[in-house]
Amino acid sequence: MAKSDFNGFYARLTQSSLAHWLETLPAALREWEQQGQHGEFKKWQRTIALLPELTATDIDLETAVRIGNASEASDNDHARMQGLLKQFMPWRKGPFELFGLPIDTEWRSDWKWDRVAPHLSDLRGRTVLDIGCGSGYHMWRMLGAGAELAVGIDPGQLFVSQFRAIRRFVPEALANNIELLPLGIEQMPKLAAFNTVFTMGVLYHRRSPIDFLQQCIDQLRSGGELVLETLVVDGDVHTVLVPGERYAQMPNVWFIPSSAALVHWLERLGMQNVRVVDESVTSLEEQRATEWMTNQSLADFLDADDRSKTVEGYPAPKRAVIIANKK
Amino acid sequence: MAKSDFNGFYARLTQSSLAHWLETLPAALREWEQQGQHGEFKKWQRTIALLPELTATDIDLETAVRIGNASEASDNDHARMQGLLKQFMPWRKGPFELFGLPIDTEWRSDWKWDRVAPHLSDLRGRTVLDIGCGSGYHMWRMLGAGAELAVGIDPGQLFVSQFRAIRRFVPEALANNIELLPLGIEQMPKLAAFNTVFTMGVLYHRRSPIDFLQQCIDQLRSGGELVLETLVVDGDVHTVLVPGERYAQMPNVWFIPSSAALVHWLERLGMQNVRVVDESVTSLEEQRATEWMTNQSLADFLDADDRSKTVEGYPAPKRAVIIANKK
Amino acid sequence: MAKSDFNGFYARLTQSSLAHWLETLPAALREWEQQGQHGEFKKWQRTIALLPELTATDIDLETAVRIGNASEASDNDHARMQGLLKQFMPWRKGPFELFGLPIDTEWRSDWKWDRVAPHLSDLRGRTVLDIGCGSGYHMWRMLGAGAELAVGIDPGQLFVSQFRAIRRFVPEALANNIELLPLGIEQMPKLAAFNTVFTMGVLYHRRSPIDFLQQCIDQLRSGGELVLETLVVDGDVHTVLVPGERYAQMPNVWFIPSSAALVHWLERLGMQNVRVVDESVTSLEEQRATEWMTNQSLADFLDADDRSKTVEGYPAPKRAVIIANKK
Amino acid sequence: MAKSDFNGFYARLTQSSLAHWLETLPAALREWEQQGQHGEFKKWQRTIALLPELTATDIDLETAVRIGNASEASDNDHARMQGLLKQFMPWRKGPFELFGLPIDTEWRSDWKWDRVAPHLSDLRGRTVLDIGCGSGYHMWRMLGAGAELAVGIDPGQLFVSQFRAIRRFVPEALANNIELLPLGIEQMPKLAAFNTVFTMGVLYHRRSPIDFLQQCIDQLRSGGELVLETLVVDGDVHTVLVPGERYAQMPNVWFIPSSAALVHWLERLGMQNVRVVDESVTSLEEQRATEWMTNQSLADFLDADDRSKTVEGYPAPKRAVIIANKK
Repeated sequence: MAKSDFNGFYARLTQSSLAHWLETLPAALREWEQQGQHGEFKKWQRTIALLPELTATDIDLETAVRIGNASEASDNDHARMQGLLKQFMPWRKGPFELFGLPIDTEWRSDWKWDRVAPHLSDLRGRTVLDIGCGSGYHMWRMLGAGAELAVGIDPGQLFVSQFRAIRRFVPEALANNIELLPLGIEQMPKLAAFNTVFTMGVLYHRRSPIDFLQQCIDQLRSGGELVLETLVVDGDVHTVLVPGERYAQMPNVWFIPSSAALVHWLERLGMQNVRVVDESVTSLEEQRATEWMTNQSLADFLDADDRSKTVEGYPAPKRAVIIANKK
Repeated sequence: MAKSDFNGFYARLTQSSLAHWLETLPAALREWEQQGQHGEFKKWQRTIALLPELTATDIDLETAVRIGNASEASDNDHARMQGLLKQFMPWRKGPFELFGLPIDTEWRSDWKWDRVAPHLSDLRGRTVLDIGCGSGYHMWRMLGAGAELAVGIDPGQLFVSQFRAIRRFVPEALANNIELLPLGIEQMPKLAAFNTVFTMGVLYHRRSPIDFLQQCIDQLRSGGELVLETLVVDGDVHTVLVPGERYAQMPNVWFIPSSAALVHWLERLGMQNVRVVDESVTSLEEQRATEWMTNQSLADFLDADDRSKTVEGYPAPKRAVIIANKK
Repeated sequence: MAKSDFNGFYARLTQSSLAHWLETLPAALREWEQQGQHGEFKKWQRTIALLPELTATDIDLETAVRIGNASEASDNDHARMQGLLKQFMPWRKGPFELFGLPIDTEWRSDWKWDRVAPHLSDLRGRTVLDIGCGSGYHMWRMLGAGAELAVGIDPGQLFVSQFRAIRRFVPEALANNIELLPLGIEQMPKLAAFNTVFTMGVLYHRRSPIDFLQQCIDQLRSGGELVLETLVVDGDVHTVLVPGERYAQMPNVWFIPSSAALVHWLERLGMQNVRVVDESVTSLEEQRATEWMTNQSLADFLDADDRSKTVEGYPAPKRAVIIANKK
Repeated sequence: MAKSDFNGFYARLTQSSLAHWLETLPAALREWEQQGQHGEFKKWQRTIALLPELTATDIDLETAVRIGNASEASDNDHARMQGLLKQFMPWRKGPFELFGLPIDTEWRSDWKWDRVAPHLSDLRGRTVLDIGCGSGYHMWRMLGAGAELAVGIDPGQLFVSQFRAIRRFVPEALANNIELLPLGIEQMPKLAAFNTVFTMGVLYHRRSPIDFLQQCIDQLRSGGELVLETLVVDGDVHTVLVPGERYAQMPNVWFIPSSAALVHWLERLGMQNVRVVDESVTSLEEQRATEWMTNQSLADFLDADDRSKTVEGYPAPKRAVIIANKK
């Protein structure tokens, strides 16, 4: 019986408000370990094992995700890191800085965080969940803002690998407070135990937005805070865009409502104090190709002649941040 | 082990394209028989057993649901029928005529049928499903239009009782071709076996309209026809009304899209030849209180000063019929 | 969705005391159809389809299993039958006679029936189960003795094929009353619905004889009759032989108790009127190699110098028939 | 969501060879916490909470189960302990000594240990399982003999309560290495992870002794040791007593084989080096009524005129200890 990678997290759970998750989580993750992993995942884990055995002491998670400074690693370490970490491309969510090595990702996820962070209830001491967490960038920032335990879920196996490649370099005391689980929200029991639930960039991929919002709410304890970021369109409470096969080249986009509609939906589900705290059109500087993500990016997904439209003719991506509280 | 009421239907299934339903249906219905029935249901079954033992020979299902004529029953039979059938009030979907006795229901469901029927593929020889069939009125009309086997699902136990009270009077050869099962669509496996699937007056009660439409499609065989009737609002492909707690006094109303949006959703789900064949504002003559349904009805749910609005201020009920084919 | 071979049996169940079996049986058999069949099974089914399309009118199930007489088939039919039926070798349980063609099986199962039959409650009108029925020989004899419906279970796929090859030649009215299901007893719900349950030659293959006896009893309705035939050893109520890896060359032999122990076990399980009606040492004439079973047989499994012992030195096979009634 | 009593044990599992048990154990125990507990259990837990808050420093588990000495508790503590611990009567397995207070149990389980212990592979560093562990007496002795982690299973809720009442007084570092789970063996996955599995006084209560032995073996890692203690009768490899409704007044006694039969069964199941290390008739001094167990005991279950027989006329209880190794 192979030892699970998640034993440490299970031990951590027993000391948290999430201990009841043990009733289903180890079975779900065992199934993933036995059947859910694709061939590349094992290769990525071997790549992680080749990374230099360094533990950073100089760590900044408050203003960025900077783990280690250049002087904590040798030139040789830097070269190996650079080469090995490129094997996890495309790097989408970031940026990260590892011992002075910048990982310049497709997204300036720090800009998103800057739009979200000022509006949050103080994260200090909170247990938080990030649904659709990608490589885990925002989870690091949540720890930086004082969260006690940050859990992210995302079925993407490259994301899990990127996350582990980075976590490898932090001290155990910090690593114990952050975990990325390769699960979808539909695999989670109704824990009703998190203080804050984030879900950023997920809702428009769901075929049933109401069910998805309810699933997010089901993870919150009473009084907890939901932080929803998603694509929106201009319009009133009755406006919902359901695009065709693709939106900005993305398949599987279903519901893009107006902010007003989203607020109404959350109220209909019993949430309180629902407010739109930000609305921004995504700029070509925020999402773009880089050395670490060389595929097409936003500039390619917009109409070359009219940057206010996608190549399919829909309104260009605009995102809202909505915060609400559970009774 | 009590004998199931559905044994006859199971035998019928073995001679149909639905035989594979036996893999799950008897277990689901046994569970319903053991745990799902409420106290009134048993009382209603006893009432049915008290109805006169008559079998109609003069039956018209083509222009109405007329089972038996007055001369086929005695005065005493008529009096008993009238008294016993009133115990199944409120009668919502109809009207029925039993041995000359008119059951004047809240809804003129025949009017709805008249809007739907001209647009259907010929029902002769077809196996059809009616999702949310109510008392079964339209199933009788489907048989009248030549369907070989009509199956309805509706969890409402009063509906099951009304249906059985009426079916009791038809000859066995006819009764064998029609059944109402006390199930919700989510309890059905993906049968992919019906020629035509009807769902009239259900979609707006579903929290996930896309999932619901997919469930309906999953029941169709390749080339089969979906007949969707639901509430719509005026507007373009982006218009969707999600009302507050109540719409026309109904709780649990979620999505009321425009016809254009519905057409788009069905196309997005891969349906072909999607067309709106009817749109009508529901009139006060089509839905109203009667001797057999003495509760409030549409007139009470509309703004007394402005019949174009519900009491909540939403647009008054308007219904569309949309037909589409599965690849 | 392929049509199940068992649809006819499901229809038959709806008209029997076994209708509640529909709650689990079609799902179990679908699983078998999709995953349980090995490659040879499909080949055997094709072989069956090549058999002459004959339906016997002259059938004797009372004194033998004789289906059709020689004059009902042509010479060509006889030749084809002989050639095709040999493809189902080894034929172990019989003998059968098909249109004059004798199938001389390893076992004279008719001799066993002659030992059992005189002691049975009248089978006329009874619904009977044969657990471990092999090719179904005894089920035919049960019908011959008046049983209304004979059901056999045996996971052996060659047995199912042999059974179907024979049933093919009887009229539908008869075929409808006999079925062989490719199941083990542990896959049956507690039907509590059979009048008589036979299990002959099975118990010694079970790792838990008490659980097995209870499973047999669970199939009986109140007052029903259990007919148990199994290997026994001489000895008192405390004597039980558990052989080593093999007994008479058979692997998977676990418990061979004395008849006295068996009687006690059945009484301990609440059975009434438990009686040993026969005990016989199996003769070399009853179990032997034939033209239709050319492998080794009993003569090879006994000590050549001392026919009272198996090659392993255990007592040679002795069989008891025990009958008991359920309260 | 109430916190589970077993969170500490779950954390301990993550640091053991049993971590994969987390895939099923928390769900099983949650079910027990929600549905399996009877009313008295909650009362017993409240009683435990009333016990003095003492932690023993002077502990002897090598020659007895002595936790604390008299001087570590006040007279008042002694009086409270005596009164509260009597509420867990009948105390069957022991004896225990708590801060000088002797709990004189029905059984001298220490005598049994003295018969078993000399024959065991060195327990130091081993992870051990005790199937049917009663109050946990022998688990303490296993720790005393050097076991690293001792896990017991027994569905008896009084046993769980007695165990917790005693464990309360040992330091956390010790308490972390011993746990009693309210489960039956059939609720355990095949862990294949224990170094030694004990099962003493259980086999004769099982309806299927072969399945039970296999379940015990399934818990052992390769090379692990099975320690089986059970009732036996005199006789050869073919001798098995299956008593009637009661044996020595106990209901649910099924198989009492000879030691020779047991050895053969274990070999048949693939165990190696199977040896009978002890056989003893249970004396009236080893099992008797005491101040802490005032019900009838062995003297009442034997024939008053012939102590070599039970009141039912069977041979008086004789017990064998058999040890075997897994390949």
